[in-house]
Amino acid sequence: MDAFMQAAIEEAQLGLAEGGIPIGSVLVHEGRIIGRGHNRRVQEGSVIKHGEMDALENAGRQPASLYREAVLYTTLSPCPMCSGAILLYGIRRVIVGENQTFMGDEELLRSRGVNVDVLQNHTCVAMMEQFIADQPQLWNEDIGE
Amino acid sequence: MDAFMQAAIEEAQLGLAEGGIPIGSVLVHEGRIIGRGHNRRVQEGSVIKHGEMDALENAGRQPASLYREAVLYTTLSPCPMCSGAILLYGIRRVIVGENQTFMGDEELLRSRGVNVDVLQNHTCVAMMEQFIADQPQLWNEDIGE
Repeated sequence: MDAFMQAAIEEAQLGLAEGGIPIGSVLVHEGRIIGRGHNRRVQEGSVIKHGEMDALENAGRQPASLYREAVLYTTLSPCPMCSGAILLYGIRRVIVGENQTFMGDEELLRSRGVNVDVLQNHTCVAMMEQFIADQPQLWNEDIGE
Repeated sequence: MDAFMQAAIEEAQLGLAEGGIPIGSVLVHEGRIIGRGHNRRVQEGSVIKHGEMDALENAGRQPASLYREAVLYTTLSPCPMCSGAILLYGIRRVIVGENQTFMGDEELLRSRGVNVDVLQNHTCVAMMEQFIADQPQLWNEDIGE
């Protein structure tokens, strides 16, 4: 498997081991991970640190030119907030682990020129299916339902 | 002036006094401020804590039912990221200080049923005009340009 999606999955697994929501993400620039992160709702009581947001935050302040060349990997289809962050920073390519357990705002991203690839990775699907079955209330909270 | 917009402006002014970007926000539920915040790019090196995001974060983990009854006040038109957060949590009403110095994703919000009111408040306009004139590079970084 793609080493970057593998890194995003490892972030998700780390989050799960911490008692959190298993969604991970990495931001890649010129073949190198410059930010990695995972959902922090449980760990930090954060409502804004979804996996993608945590990866962006951990990448730190970057010039616009870098974001335009960067690729964001995420284990799950990006929700409206994370999709908006992708649009704000002009990230042009997003690799999504799966969108079977949750369909984010991929259509908005595509309508604004972002290239979104969905892998339907079995590890990502299985991880979310198990989590949603185990903790439906926590999951609903994370997606505003 | 509306006391809640006044509180958002005070947050923006606090951010400016800290050397930061003067955008503030408050989340109001049942006539009470439950979260307040301002842009933290300079102060914390944060790329995700725009004013609205900081207010949401400081409001903490809340049930979906609360967000649906809440009103978000922000001194500036919400960017794609903050608009996405509004959509994620199902906030139905947003009061915007001004959209003259920056036009956010108001049309996306309206297209999805969010009620967006723009006050064109002179204090908000003057604050951003001065800031953009003083620190154009910092401002461009904050909006991904």
